[in-house]
Amino acid sequence: MNAPESRFSPASPLPAALLERLRAEFGERCSTAQAVREQHGRDESVFDVPPPQAVVFAQSEAEVARVVALCAQHRVPVIPYGAGSSLEGHLLAVQGGVSLDVSRMDRILRVDAEDLTVTVQPGVTRKALNEALRHEGLFFPIDPGADASLGGMAATRASGTNAVRYGTMRENVLGLRFVAASGEVVRTGSRAKKSSAGYDLTRLLVGSEGTLGVITELTVKVHPLPEAVSAAICFFPGIDAAVRTAMQVIQIGVPIARCELLDANAIRAVNAHDRLGLKEQPMLLMEFHGSEAGVAEQAATVQAVADEQGGEAFEWATTPEARTRLWTARHHAYLSGLQMRPGCRAVTTDTCVPISRLAENIDASVAEVEAAGLPYFIVGHVGDGNFHMAYLLDPARPDELATAERLSAQMVARALALEGTCTGEHGIGLHKQGFLVDETGEAAVAMMRAVKQALDPLGIMNPGKIFS
Amino acid sequence: MNAPESRFSPASPLPAALLERLRAEFGERCSTAQAVREQHGRDESVFDVPPPQAVVFAQSEAEVARVVALCAQHRVPVIPYGAGSSLEGHLLAVQGGVSLDVSRMDRILRVDAEDLTVTVQPGVTRKALNEALRHEGLFFPIDPGADASLGGMAATRASGTNAVRYGTMRENVLGLRFVAASGEVVRTGSRAKKSSAGYDLTRLLVGSEGTLGVITELTVKVHPLPEAVSAAICFFPGIDAAVRTAMQVIQIGVPIARCELLDANAIRAVNAHDRLGLKEQPMLLMEFHGSEAGVAEQAATVQAVADEQGGEAFEWATTPEARTRLWTARHHAYLSGLQMRPGCRAVTTDTCVPISRLAENIDASVAEVEAAGLPYFIVGHVGDGNFHMAYLLDPARPDELATAERLSAQMVARALALEGTCTGEHGIGLHKQGFLVDETGEAAVAMMRAVKQALDPLGIMNPGKIFS
Repeated sequence: MNAPESRFSPASPLPAALLERLRAEFGERCSTAQAVREQHGRDESVFDVPPPQAVVFAQSEAEVARVVALCAQHRVPVIPYGAGSSLEGHLLAVQGGVSLDVSRMDRILRVDAEDLTVTVQPGVTRKALNEALRHEGLFFPIDPGADASLGGMAATRASGTNAVRYGTMRENVLGLRFVAASGEVVRTGSRAKKSSAGYDLTRLLVGSEGTLGVITELTVKVHPLPEAVSAAICFFPGIDAAVRTAMQVIQIGVPIARCELLDANAIRAVNAHDRLGLKEQPMLLMEFHGSEAGVAEQAATVQAVADEQGGEAFEWATTPEARTRLWTARHHAYLSGLQMRPGCRAVTTDTCVPISRLAENIDASVAEVEAAGLPYFIVGHVGDGNFHMAYLLDPARPDELATAERLSAQMVARALALEGTCTGEHGIGLHKQGFLVDETGEAAVAMMRAVKQALDPLGIMNPGKIFS
Repeated sequence: MNAPESRFSPASPLPAALLERLRAEFGERCSTAQAVREQHGRDESVFDVPPPQAVVFAQSEAEVARVVALCAQHRVPVIPYGAGSSLEGHLLAVQGGVSLDVSRMDRILRVDAEDLTVTVQPGVTRKALNEALRHEGLFFPIDPGADASLGGMAATRASGTNAVRYGTMRENVLGLRFVAASGEVVRTGSRAKKSSAGYDLTRLLVGSEGTLGVITELTVKVHPLPEAVSAAICFFPGIDAAVRTAMQVIQIGVPIARCELLDANAIRAVNAHDRLGLKEQPMLLMEFHGSEAGVAEQAATVQAVADEQGGEAFEWATTPEARTRLWTARHHAYLSGLQMRPGCRAVTTDTCVPISRLAENIDASVAEVEAAGLPYFIVGHVGDGNFHMAYLLDPARPDELATAERLSAQMVARALALEGTCTGEHGIGLHKQGFLVDETGEAAVAMMRAVKQALDPLGIMNPGKIFS
């Protein structure tokens, strides 16, 4: 792999007339300070790209529209910015331009509890939303690792641990408002649960990674807090047995709410970080939602499946405090994992395959990384066929990055051969553009380009992402 | 309303060179016989449009691609045809052209029971698919009234009685192959349950009504046959009480599998048609899927809600035969309803609103139709906020059609004011193009047009549908 840095060079300065207008209209909310630009020009990816030339903090849809219109007038890229937690280089200013930060648009506009819908501004984060919903007896299930913004989560078609039961952003966004490349405001969808009214622009925007518009409002589904919630962990003799348990649970139709895998390396990391004292062997972390009786029934079924695979007796947690302890392992896995190799940077994979092929995908990936000798750990939304292998790299050793990229490419090739996808939930961004072509073929990517060209003829909306 | 017929005039004949090529390549499977053309030029809508100039029966994706390429070369419209059961004029040859009948592409290509996916050709009908799946312990839940083809169901984003629990075609199509306007084959999606790989072309095609391509293969989700299934009917003193029961059931999160309303007129019709001897008052027909205990628990919860609304005791059906008897009422409602006024034609509405607004939408619609004095009946997927009012019209009385169109327009305007949609599951077709603009605004429709223009620059794919 070429060093990704080499592909990008500093962009020419913003047109003075544009910067002057932005400053006149946004005052201190238009910043060219180095620190602000750098903060908006870095994400969790491995790319090293010069930061955007300016950052504008928008506080309303009208302001978003104004920034887009001004940038369109000057043919300058606009890069939407929410929480900055994307993983594949989505927010990097690869062609320069203005980072349009919508994190201050963080109001929950409506909670329609009777309809199980909420309408929010794009800067609302998932944790803030759930904090506000709790006293209504509702929750929003999509939970990527970070406390991402809902606008960003829609833009990357995010999911997380609850997707196995509640779906991803694809299934949970009912309608949007967004500013198109022209500066015009477009609304899609409604609060109705289903509709056959014309092209599904909502789902065209969900997953478009900021390349078709800047999301300014979302109406999403929420769900009643279940009457009963029960979490359990179960340890297995090998990763295979854990994965086979997850596969069978899904195949027999148990409506499990969460079904997460941590490998022995991930457990070692969270034990070191949080003194959890968990057994250092592959573990499934499961959660069951429903009525008291329903939860008990699901759990009994899953225990029987786990028994057959050599799983140990469940350790249960039914109080919120006990559940929090178990979920700490999962939530801290990434950061704890990084600390296993001080100073390292991680490259994280994201393949997703049909569930019947998951065990072979993980087995082969483990064999390859073990053979290569790179430190790694695994966490996985195994109920969806999706897992993440994080390779822990010494940033001073380019050979390790090259090895990680080779392993990652092998894993993607295998996932595609197994009829899966190169990305279950992180998106394409800068990193997976070649994999996208491998996955869906030139014809589909050409169709995506044609859509992009039609909706953003000047190419100003987060250019260089998904396809170059 | 203008008589819809007046908008269309006979198209000029097909170019002789095109017809010659189609005949040479497809032999008897290219037909210009009047009867065949008329069969392919009529649907359940009220429009009277000259039939397509030719019908080609394709037997493979390569043949579909060939027809599209030849039509592109001659700038002749291609109108995909499946089971011919669409309701809004989708298959009418409003600009002439070739009806491309894919009903002979009816093979089930793969059943991946372990992954709960199947891959089919577009002419497979929902009943044929379920027949094939039954012995695998699986079922495909989407059930529009007619025995529609899966290609057509995807193209119109169909749903039906199970959508309240299992979703619509939007949620159940994982991937597609289709022939684009260029004649090129495009594939989208994969067999993975989720993906963030690029624009969601799958869902752009789902609901595109044949205007962006001809679907040649679908991979869809299927579901395990539940361990226990129980159906029940419950009668209510008024339609309001029935609807409020449905609303509360959804709001408290009961995972009800089907929740259908029939009004007293619909019951009278099915009693007359099938001698069912049901009470002639508003009825909910419900189905519960799950474990034995889970089904019993759901049913008890719903009975308690119904009791509060003055519902009578449930009449239960747990054997397949008894369930079939109850569901006969629902499945025969449309045809039985038509027979309430011999020789009539029906105009059917399809609004869908947030569930909290459903009662007021139905109440007002009933008041308006009663005041207008048109015969009607109501069936509804009330768990989704969706209902159909069928107006029964004397075809010899244009004033009745005008009244029905006025009532329908009032109902749509109200549904939009209630934050719903003009069509829950039938699509836009010819009939609802004005309503689409009312619903989503000029900017969104302009965006749809831009996508259409980019992907079908010659305008040959089912032209004149969704927007003119």
